[in-house]
Amino acid sequence: MINVEIITIGDELLIGQVIDTNSAWMAVELNKAGLDVKYKTTVGDDEKDILDAFERAFSRASVILVTGGIGPTKDDITKKTLCKFFHTRLIFDEKTLAVVKSVIEGLGKELNELTRAQAWVPENASVIQNKVGTAPVTWFEKEGKILVSMPGVPFEMKWVMTHEILPRLKEVFPVSDFILHQTFWVKNYTESQLALHITLFEDNLPGFIKLAYLPNYGLIRLRLTGKSSNEAELRKEMSTQREKLIHLLGNDIVSEEDHSPEFILHEILQQKGLTLSLAESCTGGKLASLFTAIPGSSRYFKGGVVSYTNEAKNEILGVSNTEIEEKGAVSRSVVEQMALGAQRIFHSDCAMATSGIAGPGGGSPGKPVGTVWIAVAYKNKLVSEKFQFSNNRESNIIRASNTAMMMLLSMLSAPSS
Amino acid sequence: MINVEIITIGDELLIGQVIDTNSAWMAVELNKAGLDVKYKTTVGDDEKDILDAFERAFSRASVILVTGGIGPTKDDITKKTLCKFFHTRLIFDEKTLAVVKSVIEGLGKELNELTRAQAWVPENASVIQNKVGTAPVTWFEKEGKILVSMPGVPFEMKWVMTHEILPRLKEVFPVSDFILHQTFWVKNYTESQLALHITLFEDNLPGFIKLAYLPNYGLIRLRLTGKSSNEAELRKEMSTQREKLIHLLGNDIVSEEDHSPEFILHEILQQKGLTLSLAESCTGGKLASLFTAIPGSSRYFKGGVVSYTNEAKNEILGVSNTEIEEKGAVSRSVVEQMALGAQRIFHSDCAMATSGIAGPGGGSPGKPVGTVWIAVAYKNKLVSEKFQFSNNRESNIIRASNTAMMMLLSMLSAPSS
Repeated sequence: MINVEIITIGDELLIGQVIDTNSAWMAVELNKAGLDVKYKTTVGDDEKDILDAFERAFSRASVILVTGGIGPTKDDITKKTLCKFFHTRLIFDEKTLAVVKSVIEGLGKELNELTRAQAWVPENASVIQNKVGTAPVTWFEKEGKILVSMPGVPFEMKWVMTHEILPRLKEVFPVSDFILHQTFWVKNYTESQLALHITLFEDNLPGFIKLAYLPNYGLIRLRLTGKSSNEAELRKEMSTQREKLIHLLGNDIVSEEDHSPEFILHEILQQKGLTLSLAESCTGGKLASLFTAIPGSSRYFKGGVVSYTNEAKNEILGVSNTEIEEKGAVSRSVVEQMALGAQRIFHSDCAMATSGIAGPGGGSPGKPVGTVWIAVAYKNKLVSEKFQFSNNRESNIIRASNTAMMMLLSMLSAPSS
Repeated sequence: MINVEIITIGDELLIGQVIDTNSAWMAVELNKAGLDVKYKTTVGDDEKDILDAFERAFSRASVILVTGGIGPTKDDITKKTLCKFFHTRLIFDEKTLAVVKSVIEGLGKELNELTRAQAWVPENASVIQNKVGTAPVTWFEKEGKILVSMPGVPFEMKWVMTHEILPRLKEVFPVSDFILHQTFWVKNYTESQLALHITLFEDNLPGFIKLAYLPNYGLIRLRLTGKSSNEAELRKEMSTQREKLIHLLGNDIVSEEDHSPEFILHEILQQKGLTLSLAESCTGGKLASLFTAIPGSSRYFKGGVVSYTNEAKNEILGVSNTEIEEKGAVSRSVVEQMALGAQRIFHSDCAMATSGIAGPGGGSPGKPVGTVWIAVAYKNKLVSEKFQFSNNRESNIIRASNTAMMMLLSMLSAPSS
C-alpha cells in the first residue's frame, strides 16, 4: 500500500480563519486510485516549520501532496521553501508565462508584475500547468518518493488533481492493494446500542476488514473497510460480511450508498420521476441548500419556502391561523399543513416540512429547545412525527434535516410506492 | 508565546468521510486566550501512528490538544493508547460513572455495558467531566507540558473547551505575548492587484506585524496580525497601520469586522431595526441557511422563497410571465421583480434576490455558466447588477451569496440611509 501524506500550508488554517475542506476531497479521490492517506499535517507560512514538515513526510510517506502558499503575494513562501529543501533555484519559464497569461486574460484581466512572477519555477521540478489559476503545480522526485506542490484554492486544487496529478500517480503506482469500503446508514440506534447489538459480528470479522462507527446527527454511518492484494477474495469476504449485517439490522439500514442523504434522495427522485418541494421553518433553508448544491437538482427540485414567521406560514403556505394560535407554530397540524402547502404551491409530488425550536432561545416548559415537528408528504400520503433533539442550534438544524430526509426515503422505499 | 499542537484522531478524517471543522474553532478560541496553534496533525485509529504523533508533539509544543477516538466502540483506541504513552493503566471511576449515567438518562436512554465502560479512566490523569456526552475528558501533565484528550463530536468538544479546558489553560498560562488580529474585507480587487496597490505599505510594516491575503470567492479578507509582549505599543502600532490601510483602500473596505458577511449584516439589521427576506434562484437556499444558522436571526429574518422554477417565480413571487418569456429567468427585470416580490409577500424592509446559471449545465452562448443577476431592495430603493463568475457550481453559489450580501451592506451603509 502506497502511503500518502497531505501537508496543508497557511497561517489562515492555524488561526481558524479557513476550514480545510481540501484534504477530505483529496483522500476520497486518492482512495479510489488505491492510495492511502496516512497522515495530514498543517503548518503556517513559516520556513522552518514547512521544512520540518517536508522532512518528516519524506521519512514516512511515499507521496507527499502539498497545498497552499503558492499565490502571488508575499505571505506565500512555499515555492522558495521548496527550492531550499530540494537544493535548487527558481528559473523563469516562458511556457508557464503563456499559461498564466491566458488564464488571466480569460478572466478579463491583465497580467501584472506579480502574476507574471508566477512563471518563476524551481529548476529541478517538472512543471504541470494549472489551467484554472495562476499558480503552476510543481512535481519533485527524490529517493523514489514524490512531492507535489499545488494551489490551496479548492476549485483549482480539484481541477489539477483530477486532470493532472491523479492520472500521473496512477501511472507511477499501479494498484497493488485493493481497498473496498462498504457503508451502511443506520437509524434507531445510539452508537453504543448498535455496538452491543453487533458485538459478535464485530468480533468475528477477519483481520483485513475493519469496522468503524461514524455517528452523524441522529444517524450512524457504519463503515466496513477491507484491504487486500487479492481482489477476488476481498470482494467475496466483504459481500459475506455485508449480508451478515443486513441480516442483523434489517430495515434499520436506511441506505447502503456512501453518499450524503441528500444525494441518495437526489438519485431516487430522478429514478422514480418525482418532484420535490420544501417548507422550512427551523431548518431555515438548510434542506434547500443541500439539494441545490447538487448539479442537476433542478430536474426534480421545484423550490421551497423558508417560513420563519407565522404570517409567512399562513399567507404563503396557507396554514390556518386558527391552528397556529391554538396549537402553536411547532405542532403536528401546522407542520402537516406546511408540507401540504408546499406540495400545492410548487405543484410537486413530494414535500418535506420542518417546524421546531432550534435554540438557544425560544424554548418553553411544554416545548423545550430541541422540540422539532417534521412532516413528509408523497402524493396523497402524509406522515408526521415529533422529535426531541439537543440544546445545540447547529446540531438541531442538521438533525432535523437528516431526519426529514430519512422519513422521505423510508416513504419512497415502502413496498407500495 | 505558548505553542499549541492540535492532534485529530480518526480514520474517517483520513479517508475523507468527515471534514475537520473542530480545529478551526479551537484555534480561534485559543488565540483569544493568547495561545498560538503552531501545528495540526491528523492520524488514523492506529496505535503506532498515535504514539508517534504524541511524541512529536511533545518535542515541539507546550500544549497538546487531542480530539477523537474516545467513543464507546472498539474502533476508539485513544484512551488505551494514552495509557501506553503515559505508562499508566485504566481505573474505574465512580464519579465519572455518575456523570455518564446522568447524561444518558437526560437523553431518555439507559446505561449499557459500553456506556458504563466510559467510566474507566487513566489512573494518572485528571478527569474533567463532560456534561454533554459520555466520553470523559482527561488532562495529563508531563515535563511541564500538558496533553488534553477530548471528544471529537463538535458540540461536545465546544462545550468542554468553553467550560473546562480554556479556563484551566488560561490559569496555567497567563497571557504574556499579546496577539492582535485586524481584518479588512476588501472588494473590487484581485489578490495580485491588491498586493501591488499596497506594496509600499507592506514593505514598511514593522517586523512584529504580518500581513496575509485570504481570497474569499470574489472578496479578499486582508489580515494584519501583530504579536508583542508590550500590549500598549502593539495596540498603537496596529492602529497606525490600520489608518494607513484605510487611507489606501477607502470605500473598497466593506467591513473591518472579522466576521462572516452574514454575521456583519445580522448585526447591522438589528442595530437599524430592519427586517430581511430573500428570493433565491441560483443560490438555492444558501443565503437563507447562512442567516438562520445564526442564533437570534428570527428577530429580523422573515423568510425566503427558493424559486427554482419559472412557475414559482410567477405564482409565488409575482414575477410577470411576459418578462420571464421575453427576457429569460436570468435577467435584470426578473431578478428585480423577485426582490420586490420577496419584500412584498414577507412584508420586509430589505430583500435580496439571485438568479443565475450556477452550472455545470444550463449555459448558452448569450448566457454562459456563471452569469448571475443580483438585486437588492431596501425600502423604496432597488439596485441590480449582472456578474460573470466561474464555471464551478459551488464557487458560483458562494460568490453570488457573498456578492448579494456586499451589495446590501453597501446600500445600508450609504450616507442617506
